[in-house]
Order: sequence, then structure tokens, then C-alpha cells
Amino acid sequence: MNKIDHPPVTVTTGPLPASQKVHVTGSRDDIRVPMRAITLHASANEPPLRVYDTTGPYTDPEATPNIRVGLPRHRTAWIVGRGDVAPVDGGAERPQGTAPDDHENPEPAFPRRHRPLRAWGDGSVTQRAYARRGIVTPEMEFAAIRETMGRAAAKDADHENGGGTRDGQTFGAAIPDVITPAFVRDEIAAGRAILPANINHPELEPMVIGRNFLVKINANIGTAMTQSSIAEEVDKMVWAIRWGADTVMDLSTGRDIHATREWILRNSPVPVGTVPLYQALETVGGVAEDLSWEVYRDTLIEQAEQGVDYVTIHAGLRLPFLPLTTERVTGIVSRGGSIMAKWCLAHHRESFLYEHFADICDILRAYDIGVSLGDGLRPGSIADANDRAQFAELETLGALTRIAWERDVQVMIEGPGHVPLHKIKINMDKQLQTCGEAPFYTLGPLTTDIAPGYDHITSAIGAALIGWFGCAMLCYVTPKEHLGLPDRDDVKTGVIAYKIAAHAADLAKGHPAARARDDAISRARFEFRWRDQFALALDPETAARFHDQTLPEEGRKSAHFCSMCGPKYCAMRISGEAHKAAAEGLARMAATFQDAGGQLYPPRETAADLARANAALEPKGSS
Amino acid sequence: MNKIDHPPVTVTTGPLPASQKVHVTGSRDDIRVPMRAITLHASANEPPLRVYDTTGPYTDPEATPNIRVGLPRHRTAWIVGRGDVAPVDGGAERPQGTAPDDHENPEPAFPRRHRPLRAWGDGSVTQRAYARRGIVTPEMEFAAIRETMGRAAAKDADHENGGGTRDGQTFGAAIPDVITPAFVRDEIAAGRAILPANINHPELEPMVIGRNFLVKINANIGTAMTQSSIAEEVDKMVWAIRWGADTVMDLSTGRDIHATREWILRNSPVPVGTVPLYQALETVGGVAEDLSWEVYRDTLIEQAEQGVDYVTIHAGLRLPFLPLTTERVTGIVSRGGSIMAKWCLAHHRESFLYEHFADICDILRAYDIGVSLGDGLRPGSIADANDRAQFAELETLGALTRIAWERDVQVMIEGPGHVPLHKIKINMDKQLQTCGEAPFYTLGPLTTDIAPGYDHITSAIGAALIGWFGCAMLCYVTPKEHLGLPDRDDVKTGVIAYKIAAHAADLAKGHPAARARDDAISRARFEFRWRDQFALALDPETAARFHDQTLPEEGRKSAHFCSMCGPKYCAMRISGEAHKAAAEGLARMAATFQDAGGQLYPPRETAADLARANAALEPKGSS
Repeated sequence: MNKIDHPPVTVTTGPLPASQKVHVTGSRDDIRVPMRAITLHASANEPPLRVYDTTGPYTDPEATPNIRVGLPRHRTAWIVGRGDVAPVDGGAERPQGTAPDDHENPEPAFPRRHRPLRAWGDGSVTQRAYARRGIVTPEMEFAAIRETMGRAAAKDADHENGGGTRDGQTFGAAIPDVITPAFVRDEIAAGRAILPANINHPELEPMVIGRNFLVKINANIGTAMTQSSIAEEVDKMVWAIRWGADTVMDLSTGRDIHATREWILRNSPVPVGTVPLYQALETVGGVAEDLSWEVYRDTLIEQAEQGVDYVTIHAGLRLPFLPLTTERVTGIVSRGGSIMAKWCLAHHRESFLYEHFADICDILRAYDIGVSLGDGLRPGSIADANDRAQFAELETLGALTRIAWERDVQVMIEGPGHVPLHKIKINMDKQLQTCGEAPFYTLGPLTTDIAPGYDHITSAIGAALIGWFGCAMLCYVTPKEHLGLPDRDDVKTGVIAYKIAAHAADLAKGHPAARARDDAISRARFEFRWRDQFALALDPETAARFHDQTLPEEGRKSAHFCSMCGPKYCAMRISGEAHKAAAEGLARMAATFQDAGGQLYPPRETAADLARANAALEPKGSS
Repeated sequence: MNKIDHPPVTVTTGPLPASQKVHVTGSRDDIRVPMRAITLHASANEPPLRVYDTTGPYTDPEATPNIRVGLPRHRTAWIVGRGDVAPVDGGAERPQGTAPDDHENPEPAFPRRHRPLRAWGDGSVTQRAYARRGIVTPEMEFAAIRETMGRAAAKDADHENGGGTRDGQTFGAAIPDVITPAFVRDEIAAGRAILPANINHPELEPMVIGRNFLVKINANIGTAMTQSSIAEEVDKMVWAIRWGADTVMDLSTGRDIHATREWILRNSPVPVGTVPLYQALETVGGVAEDLSWEVYRDTLIEQAEQGVDYVTIHAGLRLPFLPLTTERVTGIVSRGGSIMAKWCLAHHRESFLYEHFADICDILRAYDIGVSLGDGLRPGSIADANDRAQFAELETLGALTRIAWERDVQVMIEGPGHVPLHKIKINMDKQLQTCGEAPFYTLGPLTTDIAPGYDHITSAIGAALIGWFGCAMLCYVTPKEHLGLPDRDDVKTGVIAYKIAAHAADLAKGHPAARARDDAISRARFEFRWRDQFALALDPETAARFHDQTLPEEGRKSAHFCSMCGPKYCAMRISGEAHKAAAEGLARMAATFQDAGGQLYPPRETAADLARANAALEPKGSS
């Protein structure tokens, strides 16, 4: 634990069980890509399993992160080295946020100041701009090394097995055997991936979002009303990445928005997203009608200088679409969407975000902020799924994508929401088609409305499915959705539920290295290596705690059963014994039966079987 | 709370929030079908919403269930009235279970004895036998009334809206507008559905399992080793049905198996399933090799006389299939499967369950026990999914299904297990094809192996998907799976996760009445009727508790926001206000824009769109 007194920030540090931080060095010494190596029991006779590591220096015993100092600014050399940025005049001297004196006891400002950078002149300093010029940046190489982890070993294993053991249903995604830096570059250039990396967030460990990479997850954090503090939200950020969040969005509202964001950014190794409209609304005292392009623009620049990596902008919610929402069961359920709707209706004017979208892009490209085009008209109920309002906005997001791409801005597209199972695929298909394969980033979707308190589950179902179909990043939903602000436990539950959804999707897409962890934990399970099973689990603490509730004795960690079935009924124990005793006999039997003719041995399902099964997903007998 | 001192059994009684037990009477006065009516706030201006009710008399304030007496035996008149049963000679005098004196302090026997019935002569008293003779039994009518609830209203609403508002993707399931008793009969006669209802379980409230009905869920309970007691397991049964379990399986092992089952059966309004092999193994002192057909047969008859409604029998695990499991990562993970494998290997003989399957059916049909053909070779890991061992057994289950059907026995088929997303549909397709459309009953499937402690989520994802594809009943998985015996909290979590999966599947299949609850809760959400939202939730207690964690004050139950976003950022509040203020203006706008030409208003997705989206589920670019 790492406790800071003023403000009293305590974040969880230290390695996960049986895990070590390792670094893979790239083409230059300062590209040091972190991975988590899980060491297994000697009896396993397996090398440590490397898994993707989002946890930053907080799990590195060699590092000593100090929340008041912030993380090392290791990207600075890369950014400055490109020779296309300059310090912003007076940037560090700007007012630190929204009306800092309008309340007593404001939260403390982050103790250190850094002078912000921006593009020199009207240049583009985006990863997209570099990619289109054929440049592989250190950021791209960093992301490629993370993504390619384990793939070479999987390919070798496949080769040893005679090839063809890879399986999966990709729905058109490209899942290469190896991810090269050039592949990352080309995906970014094509707009199929984004690498969110503001030049003012040099603490970042770069990662890439796109359907031809591992499926990512985002965790929302942030203060609301007076329900939380900076200390709590910084803790939630570190806690969320400890369990696997690939990005975090700071959705703080109310007071001290600027200061909260600064503390989070300076301590975050993952990309940080925001919704600038929230701060703009605070600036105008919470009166949506008083918003203006000028207020919004200044807010955006303020956040750009702080280092926000991507921003949600609800620019596709247009005045003419609002009548489409009048018959809805749940109207407009996006916060940003409802604010903009109110502004449009009050002024009877087209949205200033829509009208100024090109101006917005000119700001974003000067800092390399990715735009996440918000779905202000996403459905908030099963009844409203896939309605005209939703798809009218999606078409507009496609048009805005092209505007952003022309200006070298990286784009992803936000998606719903509440969608029943049979309407999920059409969301993915329409998004790919309409938005030129820009990465899709969905909230769930929730597959039913009837389980408040369990919406991490209603939505993990939809998230797994849309991730399989091609969604690039899944925004988590916590058990508190619809009911209240998530606390620390909710953040963890939401992250784990979404790691499950993302991993289930990766497995189904046939990512070559995805199954390594499943196979390792299943071997551990069959061999009763309980500690290995815990260490390989997404949540080692909970797995161990559940096991120990009924069998706490230390000796039980090597017992060949658990309390679910007990020793006499443990199938794995019986099966293991039987196999051991009869190993030779079984091999003889196998040969005998194989000689005797194949009809007892139906072949493993083939690609043709899968094709037939999935072709049958066409409607039959439905209305 | 209803506390019984000896044994000290406490079960949870009383209605759920804002709910009343109502009964719909059928063609005879003693067909009284329970439903739960949820009363909404007067401002909703909606009639009470009726939902499917599995809770039995425990939620009926008019009833006073006494655990030591058991539930009313209301089916007795129906069973005896058919004139085809007779009391079993000496049945009530048989030894009450497995070696009752072999340990000190045995659990107390159930205080009341009932003389068991069986078919007169070698007749068939199964619902299948009646159905094939064209008879509609009171049980069928009872189940039909439950299933048809809400459908007429949905049809009327559809008609009022001009028709065609129903949507869903059925994958070949027949989803009628109304479920008649004759439809239930015909589905049972065709083998596409089962109505598990042992003539010795007259306490039962009949229900039907089949892919043309609502998707059902099962909760496993039962003692293991010395980890639990009868009192705890009876409590778990009542607790499981309170949250929506459609059936329970008593998987008790160890001591007092007979007594535990008797307490559960006499107090269960839902079908009770068992795995008789567990008790048979206790009878032979836990030595699998000492099992025999005679021991098994006697166990089966003992359970038949007690009133078990369906039994899992691993008769498809054959000696020649065992060599197919040697290369597996997790071998055999079914308890029953591993026991039979051990017996087969020890004796080098074909399974006695397979060889005596016709004899087994002759016993089952004399009591109307459904057979649930166990998947002893189900995959226990992603690596083993859809392998030759699994599908060899499935083919055998198909052959056994035909043997059972010839003898008028009702059949369902158990399925996996651990299966990645892209291999789920082929399981459903193969099962339908191989087993003549007999109902499929799967455990999950779990879509990844890497989340012990969260396998209710890994498996709810797979369960929702296979339920949509046509699986008739989903066996729950609790958070303790792979780790320990589930406690009361785990049972509830497992049940709710599976109610979510089953309901998501029903919605996607287009069950006409399924969406009524989603729409009601979404209207309540949009109108800030918090109490209605809680009452309509699958788990009202958790929803209310989560809300109250941050806004406990009574007045907040009508607040137009929650702590997630606070008042200023509540999209629903803003959207509601904007709509109210601008209602007239919006209507005018809608007319204007519609006049101005349709391109701003993309049509709602059509059946053709869905067909195109789902046709795209064919493999592209996958190996």
C-alpha cells in the first residue's frame, strides 16, 4: 500500500500472486514493454505464462510510484524527438480548471506542473498522420510487442502438431500469426485501429484498439456530485487497471473536475478518456442552454493540454433526429446526448458540435487526441433498440468519421446500450459498413432490462457477443448501473466481468495466443495444482477465498478434491486415477477400436460443420 | 420466516415486494395455476404485471407451509382418477435409505409416510403415454396456462399496433401466439417436450420443458461430505425457487441421502431431479468397482417410490469411448461419468447402464420419471470442447432416446460444459439432429476456463446463447463452481444469473409475452418510479439495497436522479423535461421533417436486414 497524506491517497500496489513484472525491449532501449509472467509449480514443468499487463508500475516491486510526483514521463523523448511539437505559450500558467474558487475546501491541485506541448504550426502530430506517412513510431512498436506476445509460441506449437489446430470464427477480422509494428501502422493508417496517445500524456504505456487486435475493455470512473473525492477516484483508476482495464474514462462531474483529471492523468499508464461536455456544462453553471461553441472549444483545449487521450463527442446527435425519440420508451439516456438535445431544442438550432466538427478536429490533431464519436441516441431499453433515432445518428457518425480522417484524427465509434441478442449482429454490421471499419466501442450491450443490480451480467452477455462479431473495445457496466455510483468493489466486479467477455470473444475469434491461459489453468485444475489455478485466474484473490471458505487448511491446497464434490465424487480425481492406472490399457484399446473401424470415432467437427451451423443462423419460422 | 425445531429448518416465506399470489383456474376447480402479480404505482396507470411463478406456496400469505408436514398433495386426485395406478406392496415399509445405522447421529427421517404408487401391471403412466393416446391431462393444462400467460395481451397489443411488432430469431423453434393444452400434449407426444411429474410427487406444480416453451433453469443443491445438513438443503431448495429455479436437482452424496431427498421432495412444488448413481455408490461403500446392475436397479426403484421426477443416467458413456479421452486436457469431469468409466475399466466390460437401458425404461415408465441422458464425457475445458469423445457419446444418447420413446419414457439430453462461443451452435444443431429434437439441457456452457469465482458469468454468456439457439433448460453454475460447495448466497447468485440468460434467450426467440416485463421496468425507469423498478427487477432486494447505499433517504425513492449521475447529469431527467416542454414542438418538427423527405429517417431494421446480418455468420477468413 502506498499512502499519501495530502490528499490522503492510498492505492493498491505490489505484484499479483505468483507473478513477476518482466519487460521486453524493443528496437530502442527505451521501448520497454511490460508483461506479467505467472510462475507455475515445479511439478507443472511449464515455463512461466506471460499475460498482457495493464497494471503499470504499481505491480512492479522495482518501481516506487509516488502519487504526488506521477509516473515516469518515458514518452517525452519519443515525442520531442519527432521535432514537430512546441511548448504552448503560457500553458502551465492557465487557470487550473473550472471556477476553482467557487466553493470552500477545494480539492488540492496536483503538486507538479508540466508545460504542455502542441503541434508546431498547424501540423498533425497524430499516430494516424505518422502511419499514413509510412512511419512506425515507438508507440506503434510498443503496442505491437504487447499484441504479439505468445503468438510465436502458439505458431510453433501449431507447427509441431502438424498445423491447422488454430480455430475460430473471425467474421472478417484479420487475425495474423504475428503482430508486427508495420501491421499496427497499417491498421492505424487504414482507420481500422486507433492508438490513443496525447503528446501531453507521456506517462502512457501505448496500446492499440481495433478489431484485428485483442478485444479491449474500458472502466468508467470519476466523481459525481459530492459522492466521491479525488483520492477515491485515483484509487479506483489504479484498482481498475490492476484487474485489467485497458483504458479508463474520467467521467467526473461537479466540482474539481480539472484537479481530479490532473491527478488521474499524471498517475495513469493507460489512455484516459473524457467527455469534455461535462466540464463545459459546469463552466456555464449547469445551464445547458448557456453552452456555446466558444466555451466548449476552450474546455477542449484545456483538456488537450492536460493530456487526455480520447474524448467522447456527441456530434452526431442532430436537431432533426430529436423528433425520432418522442415515441421511445426511454427517450435519450446518454448524459451528453440529453444535454445537447436540450440545447438544440432550447435554441431551435443545429448542434454546435456538429457544425464545428472540423474545427474540433483541428484542435484534436494538434495534440493527438482520438475522437470517440458518442452515441447520444443509443437505446436505453430493449424496446428502443435499433430504432430510427439510433441508426440515423450512426449514419451521421459515419460522415463525421470521414471528416476526422481527412484531418488525420484517430476515430472510434460508440455503440449501444440495450439490445436483445438477435439484434446485436446488425449493430456491428451496420457500424462497420457505415463508418468505414473504424473501431466500434460499445457499452455492453445489455440483453435485457429486468435485472438492475446485475447489469454487469446482462451486459457481459451482449459484450461477449459483439466482441466476437468485431467490436474493438467494450465499455464495462458495473452492478450499480441504473442505481448509483460504483464503489471500489463494483469497479473490480465490472472489470472482471468484462475481461471475461473480451477473452471469450478473443477465443472465439481464434486469436492464436488466447487459449494458452485457458489450457494452462485447465491443466492446473486437472492436476490439482490449486495455487496455480488461483494464480492463473482473472481474480486470484476471489478464487482462493472461495476455495478456502470450506477447506481453509493449508494441506488442502494440494488435495485432490474440493468441497463441491468431496474426495469420493471428484470426477477429476477418479478420471485421473483411472487414466494413470489404465494408461497402457487405454492406449491398447484405442488402437484396437481404431483398427476395428472408425464409426465409433466421429471426427472432430470440421470447418464445414461450423459453416453449416452458422449458416443456419438465418431466420426460419420467425416473424 | 418459518422455523421448525427438529430438525431446525428455517425457510424464507412471504411475498416478494409489491407482489401478490394469484391463481388462474383451469377447466376443473382443482387446476389452480399460481402467478405472481406485481402491482405498480398508481401514477403508472398500468394493470398489475403477471409473471411466471415458481415459488410455490412459500410466497402465499394464505398458505401456511409446514416443513414437517409437506406441501398439499393436490395432484393425488388427478393421478388416482386416471385409474391406472396401484399402491406398491410394502413400499412405505422399506428401509429408509442407505445403511441408516452406519453412523451416529443420523439426520431425522421425514415425519410422515405416504404409501407409494406405481403403474398397475406393466402399464405406462407417463405424460408421454397419455399424450400419444391423445389425452390432455390436468398436468398438461396446468403447464399450458403457465406458459400462455401474457400472450393474449401481447397479441392484442400487436393487433392494435397494426400487427407485425413481434420480432425474434427462432432458429426453427415454434413460438405460437397462444399455448393451448393440446399444443403441450402434441409437443410431449412428439418428444420435443417433457413434463416431469412422478406419480409419487403429488405436491408438484406441473411445468413443461421444451424449446417451443419458455426457457427453463435448474438449480443444483444437495449435501456433500459433511459440509451441509438437511436443514440447509431444504432451505436452499425454497430459496432457489423463490428466485426463479424451475427445477432443482438434489445431488446429495455421503450420508443420509434418502432422508435429505424425502424432506426436499415433500416440500418441493417444482420437479426434483437426481443422479441415482450417487446413492448406489454409497450403498457399495464408495467402491465404484463394486457397483452392479442389481444395486443400481434397487436404488432407482427406491427413488421412484419417493417421487423423483427426473433422473440423470450416464448410459451413453460406453467402454469403447474411453480411449477417446486419453488425450484430453481435463479427462472426464462428470461425477457420474467418471464413476462409470472406473467401473468399465476395472471390469473391462460395457457399462451396465447402457446394457440395461431398456430395463431402466421399464421402471421409469411405471412412475413417470423422465430420463435426463447424462453427458458423462462432456468437455471440462475449452481445449476439449466438441471433441470425438463428446460427440461419440451424443450419438449414443440419440440411440437411447429412441429406446426410451418406444417405452413411453420422457427424455431430455444433457449437454456441456466448457465450449467457446464459436462452437456453441454446433452443439445445439447436432443435438437436435441426433436426438430427434428431444429437449436439450445444458450446464452453461462456460465460454472460458480462466475465471474461477465468476463461472456464473462465464457460463451465463454461453447459456444465453444456447438458450437462444434452442436449448430448453439451462443448469445453473454458481460462483463456487470448481472451488467449493455453493452456499445460500451462491445459490441465489446462480439462479439470478441464469434467469437473466433464460430471459435474454426468450426475448431473442421472440416469445410474445417476454418483453412485457422489460417494457414495464423501462417505463418505470424513465418515469423515476424507483419502487416499481425494484419490484419488477429479478432481484428487488439487491436493486433497492444498491440504490439506497448512496441515497438512503425515503424521499429519494421518488427523486428524478440517482447517485450515478446526480440530478444535473441525469439523462432521463433532462430528456423527460425536454420532451415535456417541447412535446408539441417536437410533433410539429416530426411532421416537417417527414414531409421534407425520408432520408433522415432510416427505416427500422427489417427481417431482410436481420437475415443478411445472420447469414454473415458464415466463416470468412478463419482457418
